[in-house]
Amino acid sequence: MPHIPLPEHLPGITGLLEYRLDTGQPIRELTQILLRGESTLTPGERELIATLVSARNQTRFCTAAHTKAADLLFGENETAWHVKQNFETAPISEKMKALLNIAALTQRSGKAVTPEAIDRAKAAGATDREIHDTVLITGLFCLYNKYVDGMATVTPTDPDYYQRLGERIVKGYRRPENGFLVPPNT
Amino acid sequence: MPHIPLPEHLPGITGLLEYRLDTGQPIRELTQILLRGESTLTPGERELIATLVSARNQTRFCTAAHTKAADLLFGENETAWHVKQNFETAPISEKMKALLNIAALTQRSGKAVTPEAIDRAKAAGATDREIHDTVLITGLFCLYNKYVDGMATVTPTDPDYYQRLGERIVKGYRRPENGFLVPPNT
Repeated sequence: MPHIPLPEHLPGITGLLEYRLDTGQPIRELTQILLRGESTLTPGERELIATLVSARNQTRFCTAAHTKAADLLFGENETAWHVKQNFETAPISEKMKALLNIAALTQRSGKAVTPEAIDRAKAAGATDREIHDTVLITGLFCLYNKYVDGMATVTPTDPDYYQRLGERIVKGYRRPENGFLVPPNT
Repeated sequence: MPHIPLPEHLPGITGLLEYRLDTGQPIRELTQILLRGESTLTPGERELIATLVSARNQTRFCTAAHTKAADLLFGENETAWHVKQNFETAPISEKMKALLNIAALTQRSGKAVTPEAIDRAKAAGATDREIHDTVLITGLFCLYNKYVDGMATVTPTDPDYYQRLGERIVKGYRRPENGFLVPPNT
């Protein structure tokens, strides 16, 4: 049960973004820009960062949601699964491995990001902007994970829920007109 | 030296918020709403949360900046200092001690926030909204701390710098017209 009353039909982050619409708006906007805005990283690659960070923080709601978004964007469910097991042996580019390494270090602590980790990413072709965005996406998902877990929000167990949520967030993170990230029942 | 080229006259978070203005904008807006917007917690009390979280993450730039902001808002430099040493014995209300306890738990992990910690805050008179905001402010400052440390930004050692930065952020977190949170030299 959540630590504060939240709408029962809006589990995980979805109820929190409706609880305070004024704080929800810039959080949604930042996510939209970072994960769906112009970038040399694909939306799927950026969802892998969100997935890895959420998995490392053990936030089940966010991990399931972003795994599903990545699966839909990649058109298969191997890559995100493999990234969560061990991104160093996942079927992704050397550049993505180096960026996910930076994300994993940042999730632990910003201070854990070494010059060697940055050099590895640059040697694999990562741009300054890609490195910047990886660190900021990691920070944003640490915010989300702490928010979702710290308020003890509900984590649905029905895979259909994450299918519908994944389909919704593939389209973007801005607030739908009716406020439902996912219809309560379809 | 920062991991990516940032303007030398904009240390800590200030250069990052200028590096990508599009992501900087919603980050500033969220901070303005949470730390300066309408609330039953004073701006000084909310700066104590930012200070404690930044201190626990050992992010020196953010700790110094928000300590100074709290000092200016409280009109003395005892409270923030004491909160960093041990908030349980600091000269603050029982409600603030209970909220800072929730912040300290959230900084460690969202999962560390127990029903007992929530009950303690409610028994001390904390509202749902105050508990919510404490968790979200903690998440936001974990984002900031990871961003500032993960990019290896410069931490000024001159106390005058934090005096000027503190005076600036007491007024708010929106972007000044010239982009300088703090004038490079006054």
